[in-house]
Amino acid sequence: MKKIIKNGTIVTAADTYQAEVLIEDGKITQIGTNLSALGAEVIDAKGCLVFPGGIDPHTHLDMPFGGTVTKDDFESGTIAAAFGGTTTVIDFCLTNKGEPLKNAIQIWHDKSREKAVIDYGFHLMISEINENVLNELPRVINEEGITSFKVFMAYKNVFQADDETLFRTLVSAKEHGALVMVHAENGDVIDYLTKKALEEGKTEPIYHALTRPPELEGEATGRAAKLTGLANSQLYVVHVSCADAVEKITEARSKGFDVWGETCPQYLVLDQSYLEKANFEGAKYVWSPPLREKWNQEVLWNALKSGQLQTLGSDQCSFDFKGQKDLGRDDFTKIPNGGPIIEDRFSILFSEGVKKGRISLNQFVDLTSTRSAKLFGLFPKKGTIAIGADADLVIFDPNFERVISAETHHLAVDYNAFEGMQVTGEPVSVLVRGEYVVREKQFVGKPGSGQYLKRAKYSSNAPLTQGETLSI
Amino acid sequence: MKKIIKNGTIVTAADTYQAEVLIEDGKITQIGTNLSALGAEVIDAKGCLVFPGGIDPHTHLDMPFGGTVTKDDFESGTIAAAFGGTTTVIDFCLTNKGEPLKNAIQIWHDKSREKAVIDYGFHLMISEINENVLNELPRVINEEGITSFKVFMAYKNVFQADDETLFRTLVSAKEHGALVMVHAENGDVIDYLTKKALEEGKTEPIYHALTRPPELEGEATGRAAKLTGLANSQLYVVHVSCADAVEKITEARSKGFDVWGETCPQYLVLDQSYLEKANFEGAKYVWSPPLREKWNQEVLWNALKSGQLQTLGSDQCSFDFKGQKDLGRDDFTKIPNGGPIIEDRFSILFSEGVKKGRISLNQFVDLTSTRSAKLFGLFPKKGTIAIGADADLVIFDPNFERVISAETHHLAVDYNAFEGMQVTGEPVSVLVRGEYVVREKQFVGKPGSGQYLKRAKYSSNAPLTQGETLSI
Amino acid sequence: MKKIIKNGTIVTAADTYQAEVLIEDGKITQIGTNLSALGAEVIDAKGCLVFPGGIDPHTHLDMPFGGTVTKDDFESGTIAAAFGGTTTVIDFCLTNKGEPLKNAIQIWHDKSREKAVIDYGFHLMISEINENVLNELPRVINEEGITSFKVFMAYKNVFQADDETLFRTLVSAKEHGALVMVHAENGDVIDYLTKKALEEGKTEPIYHALTRPPELEGEATGRAAKLTGLANSQLYVVHVSCADAVEKITEARSKGFDVWGETCPQYLVLDQSYLEKANFEGAKYVWSPPLREKWNQEVLWNALKSGQLQTLGSDQCSFDFKGQKDLGRDDFTKIPNGGPIIEDRFSILFSEGVKKGRISLNQFVDLTSTRSAKLFGLFPKKGTIAIGADADLVIFDPNFERVISAETHHLAVDYNAFEGMQVTGEPVSVLVRGEYVVREKQFVGKPGSGQYLKRAKYSSNAPLTQGETLSI
Amino acid sequence: MKKIIKNGTIVTAADTYQAEVLIEDGKITQIGTNLSALGAEVIDAKGCLVFPGGIDPHTHLDMPFGGTVTKDDFESGTIAAAFGGTTTVIDFCLTNKGEPLKNAIQIWHDKSREKAVIDYGFHLMISEINENVLNELPRVINEEGITSFKVFMAYKNVFQADDETLFRTLVSAKEHGALVMVHAENGDVIDYLTKKALEEGKTEPIYHALTRPPELEGEATGRAAKLTGLANSQLYVVHVSCADAVEKITEARSKGFDVWGETCPQYLVLDQSYLEKANFEGAKYVWSPPLREKWNQEVLWNALKSGQLQTLGSDQCSFDFKGQKDLGRDDFTKIPNGGPIIEDRFSILFSEGVKKGRISLNQFVDLTSTRSAKLFGLFPKKGTIAIGADADLVIFDPNFERVISAETHHLAVDYNAFEGMQVTGEPVSVLVRGEYVVREKQFVGKPGSGQYLKRAKYSSNAPLTQGETLSI
Repeated sequence: MKKIIKNGTIVTAADTYQAEVLIEDGKITQIGTNLSALGAEVIDAKGCLVFPGGIDPHTHLDMPFGGTVTKDDFESGTIAAAFGGTTTVIDFCLTNKGEPLKNAIQIWHDKSREKAVIDYGFHLMISEINENVLNELPRVINEEGITSFKVFMAYKNVFQADDETLFRTLVSAKEHGALVMVHAENGDVIDYLTKKALEEGKTEPIYHALTRPPELEGEATGRAAKLTGLANSQLYVVHVSCADAVEKITEARSKGFDVWGETCPQYLVLDQSYLEKANFEGAKYVWSPPLREKWNQEVLWNALKSGQLQTLGSDQCSFDFKGQKDLGRDDFTKIPNGGPIIEDRFSILFSEGVKKGRISLNQFVDLTSTRSAKLFGLFPKKGTIAIGADADLVIFDPNFERVISAETHHLAVDYNAFEGMQVTGEPVSVLVRGEYVVREKQFVGKPGSGQYLKRAKYSSNAPLTQGETLSI
Repeated sequence: MKKIIKNGTIVTAADTYQAEVLIEDGKITQIGTNLSALGAEVIDAKGCLVFPGGIDPHTHLDMPFGGTVTKDDFESGTIAAAFGGTTTVIDFCLTNKGEPLKNAIQIWHDKSREKAVIDYGFHLMISEINENVLNELPRVINEEGITSFKVFMAYKNVFQADDETLFRTLVSAKEHGALVMVHAENGDVIDYLTKKALEEGKTEPIYHALTRPPELEGEATGRAAKLTGLANSQLYVVHVSCADAVEKITEARSKGFDVWGETCPQYLVLDQSYLEKANFEGAKYVWSPPLREKWNQEVLWNALKSGQLQTLGSDQCSFDFKGQKDLGRDDFTKIPNGGPIIEDRFSILFSEGVKKGRISLNQFVDLTSTRSAKLFGLFPKKGTIAIGADADLVIFDPNFERVISAETHHLAVDYNAFEGMQVTGEPVSVLVRGEYVVREKQFVGKPGSGQYLKRAKYSSNAPLTQGETLSI
Repeated sequence: MKKIIKNGTIVTAADTYQAEVLIEDGKITQIGTNLSALGAEVIDAKGCLVFPGGIDPHTHLDMPFGGTVTKDDFESGTIAAAFGGTTTVIDFCLTNKGEPLKNAIQIWHDKSREKAVIDYGFHLMISEINENVLNELPRVINEEGITSFKVFMAYKNVFQADDETLFRTLVSAKEHGALVMVHAENGDVIDYLTKKALEEGKTEPIYHALTRPPELEGEATGRAAKLTGLANSQLYVVHVSCADAVEKITEARSKGFDVWGETCPQYLVLDQSYLEKANFEGAKYVWSPPLREKWNQEVLWNALKSGQLQTLGSDQCSFDFKGQKDLGRDDFTKIPNGGPIIEDRFSILFSEGVKKGRISLNQFVDLTSTRSAKLFGLFPKKGTIAIGADADLVIFDPNFERVISAETHHLAVDYNAFEGMQVTGEPVSVLVRGEYVVREKQFVGKPGSGQYLKRAKYSSNAPLTQGETLSI
Repeated sequence: MKKIIKNGTIVTAADTYQAEVLIEDGKITQIGTNLSALGAEVIDAKGCLVFPGGIDPHTHLDMPFGGTVTKDDFESGTIAAAFGGTTTVIDFCLTNKGEPLKNAIQIWHDKSREKAVIDYGFHLMISEINENVLNELPRVINEEGITSFKVFMAYKNVFQADDETLFRTLVSAKEHGALVMVHAENGDVIDYLTKKALEEGKTEPIYHALTRPPELEGEATGRAAKLTGLANSQLYVVHVSCADAVEKITEARSKGFDVWGETCPQYLVLDQSYLEKANFEGAKYVWSPPLREKWNQEVLWNALKSGQLQTLGSDQCSFDFKGQKDLGRDDFTKIPNGGPIIEDRFSILFSEGVKKGRISLNQFVDLTSTRSAKLFGLFPKKGTIAIGADADLVIFDPNFERVISAETHHLAVDYNAFEGMQVTGEPVSVLVRGEYVVREKQFVGKPGSGQYLKRAKYSSNAPLTQGETLSI
């Protein structure tokens, strides 16, 4: 069935204009004025912006962590994502040392297949590099369509990989056309600082931040970037939180290294003082890297504005305050790391970024959708409003005002990291491949309707990939 | 009359996709598959890319310099531009101290009105700041639609403005919504070095480069950027030629300063050794800033790739080798500064940039067209392929190979700076507001058909400007 | 007559050791244990450090400024200097455009000859470069022994030189063996900001600081350093006050440029908030560059510690609060610029630097004496405790505590910039060429006893100069 | 017995002057003119410089490596050192995991006690940090007088420590007053690159350099510096070879971190091309970090000049070309790492540094002697010419010319790294504690006469240490 969106202002990573959009068979087939669309259902977007559906390149749904599991799974998580304007998530598939990668991938398919209400893909965590892993990687890339691998430089004795593993992953990714993602913190030193803090009886949530100082994120970011340059490979630094790390990314890019950086809404509007909230409420803000001193926020905004950071991920990873976060009431190291962010990514960037003049509307789209589509092999199927693309669309009211609250959010988790924050701008309706998932702020989607996305290989000049098929 | 472009691949600053484009009344009205376009003239773009018409933000047509006048005027200059894929130029209107700005603008209208075959706007040179000038600026901006001002930090005793003039221009531009452009070289020191070289009998063209070392461009660029930050204003650095200057721009942008940088094709592919060509041929490559040592080219390419430089201008400013350049046969300071570049901007960036994998197709469009449209108040009328935009379009064959030569170029000037260079990719047909100017590589335009463009005020987050009209 | 200093701890820029020092004919002739010194007057330095007499490389005594004259002249100024441990000053000789340099030098000789109680030399201000000046410079260097020239980048229409003058001075200094000193602030922009502030009715002392922001010092410092590198010459940046300027000096030195930096006690311990003192008291702290935000102090200390800044000058330039500073009661631009600093240079650096562990004793000596002697052609006659050197010596009690106050200082001026500050360490006795000037904290010197110092040419590797006479 | 040195020019880290030096009981007791020295043996230093005896802070004598042992032990090694002007070495004592530190120290005492002809101390390698090691450290510092510990970031599976070990060592060193030394190269990545090169059949000596690129030294240097700042500890980076590492040290020092850097003669005058010498001669130049591209030399010289690097060590570690180096004839990884440098440290720095105007005479002394004495707790007993110091003295002829050669050197090893190099300046006579070791270029010392030096704790402001005993 056809749909036509009328009266809206279309925004892409480059353009802002008024036009109608015709949707046929889940794809965008025409854009223009006075389109003839006999029989099409009309969606009136008057007063609204029409954005490409958001792509959240960084989520942890249904993920085990420290003896518990994230509260939000692929159902509640993707429903909340949809309400927030996101139509695709790329979730991290955890692996276990010694086990075939395909097993881990199978587990992630099982978690998501019957639950996701929007489309999804997987990144794969690399915890070790050996012959088995190296042999399996080409298949993972070519057959599973998993073209990005994550290496942890932190979480010693859990996820942490050594520099040889990181470097070999970079070399292999270059060879096979994948993008290496790093969690950049120096886990060795964090491990020491953490043990020392506990020995000294420092058990409150704020010590989570104080034992993971920004120097250690800067150091690891610089190290990863340098190894990337040496390997002539490609790197995506997840959840950049501080000036020190931004500086390293800028430096690497200036040298022509193929290095990209993501930040998250929490780092743009929250700060380290939140971990000092009374009554253990600081635990709600425990994640890694931790929130930083407030002055870092301006550096991050400048980096988004100037293009030094290119994407906004959520790092969604939610745990209930009661029953999960409080595992660490007597020991901050036992607080499950992570927060509920997936739903408010658009609102915060729009309200604090576009409305306050820090970034343009087009940058908003690039940061929330287009750039991730290009970096992670989803473009031009996803990430834009253009002929032939999936009709993943968000009808966005730029003037609607609301207060963020756990009472009204759509996540399963029992608190909201942005509780009480006033934002302007909210999705009204959200379509995935032409079908409503959210309609006039009501959920009308269906668990299991989301499709798994096999992603294309990494190309630094995406979408030259497509260009290549044109023999350019 | 309607036209429809079929079978092409449309490229914008964000997107690459296959679709048809419908043109009505000189505007783009529909994009899609299977458009019904009864009666429309069909343009077959099979095998071709369809680009937004290029915007050359930096030309000097019919400009007096050192007792002579550029060989190419608004007729030959814009014809050559059109052949090269450019459908809009923004030319520099020179002013004289003590005379009303409006007089200078009138002169530039007189030069262009009956000659231009493509659309055009003017930047205004600021040679002095006094009450008269300050009083006249708002009118220039609001009524003439001239929203960018150029200040020269070089050419002592000719164009050079002092730092107070630069700073006051920055302050005034901020107040009224204009963009300040600088020619960033330290003219004081160049003047000394030049006089000293002549005293020492160093008269050959190479001394033009040696008396304008890159340190002096870096210094002036850093100075202008710093003053911009202090004034909380906006700056566009023209013709960035070297690593030293790129570094200063990157640094300024990292601090959140609203600073932009342009480079030119000549700095990407030619180098200082060209000024040493025998038989005075070095004079063909005399312009300011001069060509630099070859290693700077990689730095410039990296800056384009990473977004530290945002536009590609031509700095077109042509003088015949015989009769003009040779005024300086015995004294390099008498060689008219400038070169013929306007026609080959697309070819060089496409061939050396896109084809060699240094930048993406979308970056190509942003660099040659979209970003200039946004920075200089022409967007979204110009600079993109979107509904409502002017149908300024380039049908570009990405696989056509040719050798650049003065024998085949369309400029009036008697040599070509890229003589003998092999390039891939060339415009086949070029339309301005829906009308052919070049059709199947033949000129079919008409002098005087180009329109003068009143430009919108500067907005750092363009096109938020348009957004604002939507009350976002 | 002979003197012998016993029981003291001798400190030089390299060494700290206990020994006796024998003085004969105003020179140091022996250092050792158990020296036989029949008939020598014994000075007991028990519990004391013995420092080389301080060299203050930056004073303005008896200097006209803005229609008035500094309160302290060569008599009160050098007496205060002596009490503070300084045995040599290098004062700035002002010149007037169009007049022969020798006239200006003659005036400075007249000011100092009969008044100075310690030794002294002159720097020469360069306000213009023309054939006359260029012709006169070699004589000034070779005959007058004036081997350092100051160029002002600020004070528009008063002292300010343009970049060509600065550059030519650098070139000439390189040729003839002199050191160029700069006051590095962008005078053009300061002039504009100042006029604008006054137009807006901002007349209080704090606007002196706010119209001379640190960016303008950083800019000018970077510019001067860059031109120095280009000229392959040598530069000494006076009164570095802020992080921005330190960064530029560090960068220049890293590139191998022969660039040196001086800071002053006031920038190490006072800050911008002092200009906001009530009842016009802020005027006491008006000088240029202005005091900065407090965080800059740590950057300056780090630069002293790491060797990025090499000397400590006082920039002594005193005006009475009543009768002089209050010329600017209604207009901060009329407040004479400068403060009384000459007397407390040692105390502040010792108390805040050595005692607080920021610098070593040897660095203290290098900063207050040795490095200036080397840079300004006074070494090894001055600036050290070594055989053959002038017996300019300070017997310093490192544990004496006092409170700085105008009531007890020895300057003529009616206030003290460090009023109320508690310091530890004070000179007990001070000798110039073996004669007491201060003895047990009593002045015993004689106006006119100070000698004019003809200084040697600049050598970047001083004291290789002396080495050269050894045919090394 | 007394000695008196006459007619020489004494040079310290601060001073250059002519005087006599009286030596009694192995100490310097008087310096001056016309000293009465009845019965003293006169040493005529006419035409010579008198330097403090050199301190080589970085030697590997009698050290096992890769199945062999360095050719030079404490006898031949210290004899060669003495000929080269060095009167103290600090050698690296290797430890084995799991064994008490005291055992390792005992072994090193056994190697040196009966062989050394000059004084010596030990640094201790830290290969692991556990309770045993932490418990033993205070005793090592306080009783053994070993106050510097070395951590290797390279040599995976051999010496390499992880970041936690490095960080804990930094924390412990801060607590107990020791200086941490690092070999800064990323061993993980080197290990991978090495294995890969061998797999690809790349076995020649040049691959030693190509598998240890400068990026990996820069990375590790930056990492170590950052961890030092975080630990508020102190760091000494040994054998800095390249621009990348210098940059990191400069950056750290600018932030006020207590970070120091050493380079070595080989990096100042040799380059990577030496590893490509035919007939396996490249193996003579195999050490780590490897020789770098020639342009790095200028950066190192600039860093010495500007104070960014503070000492010159030799990294003496000699292996015969025949019988040892050729263990790696078919596999560069089997070439024992190291070269014979100890003897020519003075000559190269004097000839290439002082004579060519790159550094001053005083810097020469600081780099070769004084700074190491201060950093490693030997000052003021060692490292200077001052009253009370050990009479470790070098009578140095600054004009003697010679050609370096294995045929004339005093090492046991069968080649010289600087073979054929022309140098100016050579020690004539060398005294240790007042006794000749080299007299008129003849060895007159005695194995076993060298004394073991218990060193004082680290103080960043040395010699404030001594000052502290004066209750300053």
